[in-house]
Formats: sequence, structure tokens, C-alpha cells
Amino acid sequence: METFFNPRSVAVVGASNSPFNLGSTICRSLKEFSPWNGDVFAVNRKAEDVFGCPGYASVTDIPQEVELAVIITPAAVVPQFIEQCAEKGIKHVIIESSGFSEGGEQGRAMQRRLDEIARESGMRIIGPNCLGVLDTSSKFCCFYGVTKDDVETFCRNTGSISFIIQSGGIVVIILESFSMDVVKANKIVSIGNKSDIDEADVLEYFQKDDSTEVIGMYLENIKDGRKFIEAARKVKKPILAFKVGRTGEGARAAMSHTAGMANNDSIFDRACRQAGIIRVNAISELHSLPKIFTHMPSLKGKRIAVFTNSGAFGGITADLLVGAGLEMARLSPKTQEKLSKTGQLFNVANPIDLGPAISMQTFLEIFDILLSSDEVDGLLPVPSLWHPMVIEAIVELVKKCRHYGKPAAIYTPNAVHKTVTYRNNYNIPIFESPEEAVRALQVSYENARYTAMKEVLQELNAA
Amino acid sequence: METFFNPRSVAVVGASNSPFNLGSTICRSLKEFSPWNGDVFAVNRKAEDVFGCPGYASVTDIPQEVELAVIITPAAVVPQFIEQCAEKGIKHVIIESSGFSEGGEQGRAMQRRLDEIARESGMRIIGPNCLGVLDTSSKFCCFYGVTKDDVETFCRNTGSISFIIQSGGIVVIILESFSMDVVKANKIVSIGNKSDIDEADVLEYFQKDDSTEVIGMYLENIKDGRKFIEAARKVKKPILAFKVGRTGEGARAAMSHTAGMANNDSIFDRACRQAGIIRVNAISELHSLPKIFTHMPSLKGKRIAVFTNSGAFGGITADLLVGAGLEMARLSPKTQEKLSKTGQLFNVANPIDLGPAISMQTFLEIFDILLSSDEVDGLLPVPSLWHPMVIEAIVELVKKCRHYGKPAAIYTPNAVHKTVTYRNNYNIPIFESPEEAVRALQVSYENARYTAMKEVLQELNAA
Repeated sequence: METFFNPRSVAVVGASNSPFNLGSTICRSLKEFSPWNGDVFAVNRKAEDVFGCPGYASVTDIPQEVELAVIITPAAVVPQFIEQCAEKGIKHVIIESSGFSEGGEQGRAMQRRLDEIARESGMRIIGPNCLGVLDTSSKFCCFYGVTKDDVETFCRNTGSISFIIQSGGIVVIILESFSMDVVKANKIVSIGNKSDIDEADVLEYFQKDDSTEVIGMYLENIKDGRKFIEAARKVKKPILAFKVGRTGEGARAAMSHTAGMANNDSIFDRACRQAGIIRVNAISELHSLPKIFTHMPSLKGKRIAVFTNSGAFGGITADLLVGAGLEMARLSPKTQEKLSKTGQLFNVANPIDLGPAISMQTFLEIFDILLSSDEVDGLLPVPSLWHPMVIEAIVELVKKCRHYGKPAAIYTPNAVHKTVTYRNNYNIPIFESPEEAVRALQVSYENARYTAMKEVLQELNAA
Repeated sequence: METFFNPRSVAVVGASNSPFNLGSTICRSLKEFSPWNGDVFAVNRKAEDVFGCPGYASVTDIPQEVELAVIITPAAVVPQFIEQCAEKGIKHVIIESSGFSEGGEQGRAMQRRLDEIARESGMRIIGPNCLGVLDTSSKFCCFYGVTKDDVETFCRNTGSISFIIQSGGIVVIILESFSMDVVKANKIVSIGNKSDIDEADVLEYFQKDDSTEVIGMYLENIKDGRKFIEAARKVKKPILAFKVGRTGEGARAAMSHTAGMANNDSIFDRACRQAGIIRVNAISELHSLPKIFTHMPSLKGKRIAVFTNSGAFGGITADLLVGAGLEMARLSPKTQEKLSKTGQLFNVANPIDLGPAISMQTFLEIFDILLSSDEVDGLLPVPSLWHPMVIEAIVELVKKCRHYGKPAAIYTPNAVHKTVTYRNNYNIPIFESPEEAVRALQVSYENARYTAMKEVLQELNAA
């Protein structure tokens, strides 16, 4: 798999100088926009150079070894190019062209032909009908249609969240959202119709990949349920999965997109629970939730302490926590007395009402009391940012959470555009709504239980 | 009620020059930050002037008529000031002080005493334990603790969404969010413990208020269920209500905040359905949803046509629509044929896949075909903003929706910070997530049915 993310040489098959040619956008981005500096060759009928990439009529004409071929031609001619790749001894191929299984019987027949050639030659294929691969460490990106801005953004930011994504549109939202968040993308693989390499293969690779901390998936179907569950069970990192097709209408729409069989949704749900995969409810959760794993210890129990200086959010978060299967921590008289001594708090029972104005010292004392208490498993702080000191207190809170080994899902009651700016400027893991913060605690707890389950399964297998 | 929103003269009782005095922030904001130019008097022990507002020891000493008193003193002395207000003949009082029903038996007794004085004198009271009132038309705002920035923001923007809000923290989020949205606030009333004026009274006023198009409510409890339902049934404008206290924990937290009885949540739910009130699921819906009412015709049926150039969002939105009780419109062969003729569409069945690049002309033709079709009640467009032309097409779509009397809930697949910027710069009603867009269609349809229900009830009452 490694070669897909950092090949020494690439042939872009179908890159030409015709107007609107998609292959040429790949040549340009590799040659001009990205600091990645492997060799790039353009393959087209006229053997013409494209954006400085030497042109050949066939990969077999390229006078040196080619580690990866990216094919982006009309579907009908893909099989002949695959044959040439096999002849050239290329072992890694990404087929970005569409028009295969998702496009009727003729397309399905062509896809089967690809599979045969691949099997015979020992070649591994990503796609067809995909966007390709992005690696923010090696800076290799063979997405078509990306702009200079896009490439500069992901080159600037090397993160630890890797994705398996069946659709290009989702990639854009995730990268854009990460540009204003405390976590960044590491690797993205768009697997498309997955005639060869599927979600289970990539999961296995991401488990071995040291630079990946959290794995996200956008799926329209599962190729092989058993293989998927087995691969996921071996992954010791949080896995977040969104699957389209909860309803018949959604499944029908997805089918026309990436040709998946309309997997029964409740079967997928059960598979996730058996495999230790967190099923997310919205695309936005794929980029909003990873920071609870990267920036906070995991939630090992259900008892949450809320503190806020907006009485309304005490009630709102209590409703949300209970709705999420978590609990409002019951603070003993002793803990409440300690809280009383810190300053002028309005209410020392949970939810703790901080009142309108408390000092940095009081904040720090509250953090210590709650995080050290064996009555509390995690925090849900909802402080208003009425003074720069509050942000500084939150920075200290993040450190204290690590020290005590308990998480805080921080929400500051502001409009989203303000929250996003604060988060970006101060680099602290703030969630964008109370719903999102509670959801983060919920998935943190879910993941802690899955981790325990996987450990037991591993012991049983070893025994 | 009118006087509460635009009094000619105000006494701020409890405003002094002591450090951290909250009353002085009201004097300052009225006198220095806002263009509102009624008379402001400060009432304090020393009879000292505050930020240029003449000071008196009692409202009875003020040598001219006072239309409104804003009281922000410790709770214990509020009754004596209320008596002075009654003596002075002041008919409108806002009590912002806390420490009444929400603060135990002594507080409850004091609140009862206020009620008595008010009843005897014919005075109307907002509060206690509230933030006060804001009117973006008259520019009158007696919120305590607001900054120059806050006041300038709401003075710049006069909108048509009015709110009844039991908590100050919520007001901040709504005003901030509106600063980057196509709708703006009109009037906000923070009703607090509502010893006299309650949600039903304000509903009645907002129905009569021509500058209010949509009403939002944040409630922690309902004072009088029957009165509330009757008032809401007479309102011919969409009403969105968020109530805290879905769970016992949430109700308990709210109780300590604004002293409400923990209304049974399912009773509130039923009351909303009987009263024609849309119950919202999150605070964010109070500011995200109104634009579907102000900028789009209402959704009169369930059949939605989706068009997108991201195959993934075809499936995602289909799932969401079905989950929301709406339907994917079935397009007849005739309609599909018309769509085929517009340009190079990938898929002309619903969800319509626009493919990577279509022209303005094609966009306009698609809008006409779908909006004029009797197979379609509303649209869910999910176009990628890959070219400035797409935004221009959306501007045209908004006009066409008005022309055909059918709504479109627009979502552009970008990170929220980008969406918010596009929406603000181009002034078009874009929603921030596919979930939000589908929810907007759902509430539009719900409101259309409530409107029909209210008309029938009115006819029955008239008969």
C-alpha cells in the first residue's frame, strides 16, 4: 500500500493538453503546486508533454520504472491501458475514470475484465470511479481538479486523521473544515467502486501506519462484511464510519453513484457494533469528532460534570447528556463544599453555575476539584468567553485533562463563525454546539468500551 | 406593550458609579452606544449622575413623567422601589434583578409581594430575573452588560424575527449568528421568571406587530398552558419554540435557573401540536430555520426534488428526506426527458446528478422544469460552488421559487465557515448542513399544515 501514498514515479494515463482534460490537472498539481518531487509522465495519443511532464503514447514507452499508474480516460479504453500497465510491470494502479459498475451491464463487464487482468499480473488497483489518493506527509496527491489553494492548504497541514472515502465531494468538506480546526488530515483514499482494494484493505494499512491516530470512513456499501469486521477488530485506533443508505431511497441513490449493493442498514449497524466501529450520524461528525480522541483522554465512565455561566446551558446540556445515555455526576456534599470555597459560584450542584465573573485562580481550582474527584468521569465546560482570561483558563484545562486522564468536551456559547475563529486562533479543541460536545463524550465512551472489547477478543484469540 | 420597546423616558433604578455596577452599563449603552434618544435617569442612594444620566434618590424625585422603570438592584430592595414606581404612576417596569422565585422561599414571598403591588397599581412587569428588552427598530435596548460592539451590530441590522427568551445566554448566540445570516432580529424580550407578563402576552403582541414575520421562543417552562395555546392559535406567523427540560435532569437544572415548574415534556409537546407551534430540537434551529419562512414560499406537499453535482449528497439527502417524513419526488418519463434535453446531466432521475460542469442556461432550465412540474412540491439543491456562476444561478433560483410559489432549501457542500461567508456576501438563504436544509423543508411543511389548522379553527369559532 505504501507505494500508493508516495511513489517514486507516476504515469498519468489520459493526461493531455486538450481543453477540460482532467488528467492534465493531476500533472499540474503534482508538478507545479505540490512540493512532492517524484517523476511524472503523461500518457496520451499524441505523446505530448503536459505541464512539463514528458509525454508518451503508452506506459510501455516510458524509458524507466513506473511505480504507479493513474488512469483517467474514458471507461471504454481503460482495459487496454491496464493491459499496457501489466506489460510494463506496474504493480500499483489507480483508476479514476467513471462508467463501470455504476453505469449498467456494459460497465460491469468492463470492471470484471479489469479484475481478471489485475489478478493475472499481481497488480493492485484502487477504484475505478474514484478521486485518488492524498498524503499530507509525502505531499503526494493525485486528485483531479484540485486548485493551487487546495494543495497549499493540505501541504501546510500534516495531521493524524486518515480517511477511507467513497466519494470526492466529501473530501472537500473535510479538508476545508480541518483548515479551521485543531486536527488535520493525514491520508485520504477515495476507493470508488473498489474492484480490488476495499475498505478492509485500507483499514489494515491505517492500523499499521504510525502517523494515523484516528480513522474516518464514508461508505456507500461494504464489499465483504466478514473481511471488514475482521479487519476492524484488529484496529487499535478509533474508527468513525458514516454510511449512506439508511433508507431505501438513499440506498437507491447511492447505487447509481458507486454501484454498491444496497446493504441492509440494520446489518451494517450490527456489523459496526461487532467490529468496534463508531457509526456517525452525519458527514460533519467525520471532521468534528476526531479531536476528542487526539486532544483528550478517553471517557471511561458515564458521569459528567457540567459547569457554565449561562444558566440556560445547564439545562440544555443536562437534557443532551441524559439523551446520549450519559449521566449528570452527583457531587457529594464534600465536593460541593470544596467548590463553594473557590469563589462566588452561583450553584455548586451539577450543573455548576459559575456566575457572571470568576478569576483564573477559581477556574483552576474548579478544574482540580472536578478532575480529581472519583465522582466525575469527564467534564462538559460551557464557559462564556467574556474575557481573554477565560480562553487562557481553557488552555490550562486541556493540560489538566491530560494530567488527570479525564476528558473535557468544551463548548463556548457563541455563533459558529466565532467559535471556529477562537478554536483556530488558540488551537484548543472547542466544539461548535452543545449537541456536538455531548456527542463527542458519547463517542469517547463508546470507543473506550470497544477498546476493552477488542482486548478481550485478542486475548481469547491468543489463548 | 409598545412602551416597553420604545419608551420616551426611562429610569434605571440601581444604576450608580460603583465598580461592577450593572445598572450603569444600561445607562451607558442607552446614552452612548445607541442612537435611541429618549430621556434616561439614574436612581441610586447618592442621587449621582451616571454616564451623563441625571441622578435621583427615588423615581418620585424625577421632575417629569417616566414611562418605563428598569430595576436592577439587590432583590431585597426591589419591593420598595416598585412601591415608589407605583407612587410615581409608572405603568411599565422591567425587573432584571435575580434572587426571586428561583432562589427559595424568601425569594418567592418577595415575588408575590411584587405581584400584589403591580395588581393594585395597574402596572405591567417584565421579569424579574431577566435581561430586559431589545428593539432593533427603535434601537432601544435595556440589556445589562452589553458592549459598544453588540449595540452597533444590532443597530445596523433591523430584521423581522422576534424572540421570547427566558435566558440571556441564548440572546448572545442568536444575535451573533444573525450577524452572518440573511435574516436579522427585530425584537427580543427576555421574560425571566414572568411574575406578570408571560410568553402568551408577548405572543399576542408579536402577532399584532407588523414588523415581526417569525417568532422564536426559548422556554424553560409554561406559566399557563391554556392561555398559551389560545394565544398561539391566534398567531398567523410561524412560531418556533425550544424548551429545555426534556429529561428530569434538564428540568431540575432549569428549575434552579428561572424557577419554572418542571412541566411534563410530553404535555408541552402535545400543547405545541394543538397550538400550531413548531417545536425545535436545538438552540441553533432558532436562528438557522427562520430564513426558510422569510425567504421562501411555504412547502405545501411532501415531494422534494434533489439536484447536486456530488453523487454522495444524492444519497445523503434522500436518507434525510425520508427520515424527516418527506418524499423523493418521482419524476415522470416526460419530465426526465425535458431534463435530458437541458445539457449533459449524469442522471435525470431524482436525485438529479448535474455532473461536473453545467452552464447558467442549463441551471435556469432545470429550475423551470422542476418548479413548474406538478410532480414536485419543493427543491433541495446541493450545488458545488466551483465557479462564481453557480452563486449567480442560486440568486436566480431564489427569484424563481417566489415566482412559482415553491421553496428551495439550498445547501452548498462546503465547510461551515465558508458557507457562512458565501451566505453573508451574496445574501442568499444557504443552510449550513444537509441536515439543516432538510429540517427547514420539514418545518416549512409543518407550518403550512398548522396554518391550515388555524384557519379551520377560526372558521369554526366564527360560525
